[in-house]
Amino acid sequence: MADRTVNVITICGSLRKGSYNRIVMNALPGLAPEGMQIKEAPPFSEFPLYNADIQNATGFPAPVQTLANAIRAADGVIFVTPEYNFGIPGPLKNAIDWVSRVPNQPFAGKPIALQSASPGPLGGGRVQYDLRRSMVFLDAFTLNKPEIFIGNCAQRLDDKTGKITDEQTIGFIRQQLAAFANFIAAHGPKG
Amino acid sequence: MADRTVNVITICGSLRKGSYNRIVMNALPGLAPEGMQIKEAPPFSEFPLYNADIQNATGFPAPVQTLANAIRAADGVIFVTPEYNFGIPGPLKNAIDWVSRVPNQPFAGKPIALQSASPGPLGGGRVQYDLRRSMVFLDAFTLNKPEIFIGNCAQRLDDKTGKITDEQTIGFIRQQLAAFANFIAAHGPKG
Amino acid sequence: MADRTVNVITICGSLRKGSYNRIVMNALPGLAPEGMQIKEAPPFSEFPLYNADIQNATGFPAPVQTLANAIRAADGVIFVTPEYNFGIPGPLKNAIDWVSRVPNQPFAGKPIALQSASPGPLGGGRVQYDLRRSMVFLDAFTLNKPEIFIGNCAQRLDDKTGKITDEQTIGFIRQQLAAFANFIAAHGPKG
Amino acid sequence: MADRTVNVITICGSLRKGSYNRIVMNALPGLAPEGMQIKEAPPFSEFPLYNADIQNATGFPAPVQTLANAIRAADGVIFVTPEYNFGIPGPLKNAIDWVSRVPNQPFAGKPIALQSASPGPLGGGRVQYDLRRSMVFLDAFTLNKPEIFIGNCAQRLDDKTGKITDEQTIGFIRQQLAAFANFIAAHGPKG
Repeated sequence: MADRTVNVITICGSLRKGSYNRIVMNALPGLAPEGMQIKEAPPFSEFPLYNADIQNATGFPAPVQTLANAIRAADGVIFVTPEYNFGIPGPLKNAIDWVSRVPNQPFAGKPIALQSASPGPLGGGRVQYDLRRSMVFLDAFTLNKPEIFIGNCAQRLDDKTGKITDEQTIGFIRQQLAAFANFIAAHGPKG
Repeated sequence: MADRTVNVITICGSLRKGSYNRIVMNALPGLAPEGMQIKEAPPFSEFPLYNADIQNATGFPAPVQTLANAIRAADGVIFVTPEYNFGIPGPLKNAIDWVSRVPNQPFAGKPIALQSASPGPLGGGRVQYDLRRSMVFLDAFTLNKPEIFIGNCAQRLDDKTGKITDEQTIGFIRQQLAAFANFIAAHGPKG
Repeated sequence: MADRTVNVITICGSLRKGSYNRIVMNALPGLAPEGMQIKEAPPFSEFPLYNADIQNATGFPAPVQTLANAIRAADGVIFVTPEYNFGIPGPLKNAIDWVSRVPNQPFAGKPIALQSASPGPLGGGRVQYDLRRSMVFLDAFTLNKPEIFIGNCAQRLDDKTGKITDEQTIGFIRQQLAAFANFIAAHGPKG
Repeated sequence: MADRTVNVITICGSLRKGSYNRIVMNALPGLAPEGMQIKEAPPFSEFPLYNADIQNATGFPAPVQTLANAIRAADGVIFVTPEYNFGIPGPLKNAIDWVSRVPNQPFAGKPIALQSASPGPLGGGRVQYDLRRSMVFLDAFTLNKPEIFIGNCAQRLDDKTGKITDEQTIGFIRQQLAAFANFIAAHGPKG
């Protein structure tokens, strides 16, 4: 792996502009280990609600194909997501449901990492296992550890400056990104 | 309960017109026990993807309020849903996520029953527990048993006539609806 | 309910004498609202590993019957349990598996509440949903809210004095016990 | 991998001698692809209920160490297990809980496959995701697909002859074992 850059894309589970999870996502490029480049995936904000009738009548909407292609081209995907009603945010699940129908769906064999932030103490302790289960169905390859749960996130993230202010959180994220680089090297399709 | 009709609404997790789960949902009014009236809830097909910025800028979209009001007015809610990628369909989760933000959210204390159909053998054995977990957060009251998993549904439902053809499945559904009537009588807000 | 005492029993998921969860369990009688009496259930420490061959050859071991009878006689059950390997501790699950086979199994219709403490930040954010799922199968009635997750428990419990030292934790527990009293009154078999 | 045998061990989740899952487990050696040898792991039937006080007072019981060593020495582990009360059987979880505390716990990086049989239609559709979650904590590597759920198992297994009688089930198992061989080759510690 030493001779090339690993390209990782990030998918934020919240559409809110000031989202805490977006703050975390935006910090990742600056925390990546040497040799890993991180950038945001194309958006799913314009996806229609999944409906097989749309798919059958007019094919996959352009933004669905764009996201699917970006996932296919990436060496790894990081989901950074809140938990809504103890589960995956509907818009994020809708994006996964669309992308999963694209022929030769792009999650197969893809290395995945998960991060979640929430104002409550658990930091997304439930949503991540639901995402892991969807990734089992899609035959992706999800990093086990370290897990990143940013609980009580209003104390660790500054939504005015858009920065992570808690050094421990920054340290955990650096550890996960380093572990993810090794994971991609060992288990990714190009590893 | 003998002196009034119990009003139950149904929410189908699939937007596809010919959906197997829609076939099941459409059959429910004809299988209801005496004293229970079942009708379809207002649709969530026009909900935007959940985004708190929309909520803050323009309030709750009209169809969100309409669905929330219908849930609030009902004595019980039955979800009839497929499983997408081993989880709740994104559009259905999106609907729950919107409705859950409406002030005085309508799931609190509401009796809920779950049904799922799928072409595979498990019949939705995973999605129902995710829905149950969201209903814990929303402080609803979900019927335990009997569970309705309609596996191998293409053999039990006729998507040409739109009918349930399997007598055993019909029997299970009747049992659940009868149990749900008792559950509403014992534990519903008006019980 | 005003005219009689509600009897609740507690089941600790850890067999370790100095268990943090045991500290929490031991504090509950002193935090119960008026009219609720809380005491520890008979132990499951002498249960054999569940094996249907034992059940068929010699019937239910005496301690299994004792625990089943205590659950049957109680107005409600509170599980106070750690999380082992992201799930229900084996010994506790073994106890549930034995008791569940006793004829006329005692969890049916029984009000249940859940508490968990752990040294990590999540405080048992995973084990409780597994317990809830087992309780669905056993047709129990599990309180939704408030949930009690005592994360970073070494800072909130004093394992020298065996006391809960964190006032916020004490407050949350009092709230749950009060909610459980109302839940038993509204939904318990004698409600 | 072509030049050596892959050694896989099996762990049955039921202690019952005539267990359906034991029938499946016993059939695996005869269904293994060329180059894979499958044998039963040392038993956990003599494990005490997990109690950290025992561990601290007298160390790990001999059968715990024996099983941990066998897992450590194996190239992969297959769990074949029923579902009890919608979850992992207590005795199996107890075995995992003991083994997980052994220093240098043996599940780390270990390839894992899951199979389950049940008399009901779902065939263990819930227990496998709980096992997957425990394996996340233990940093094992669990095969995604194909999943093996042997529902309505009394019609597919003959508990008089101890054989799998359903050819489709045999075919699914062969496919999983072949996929597991590839998975071990690609991702196992010696791959």
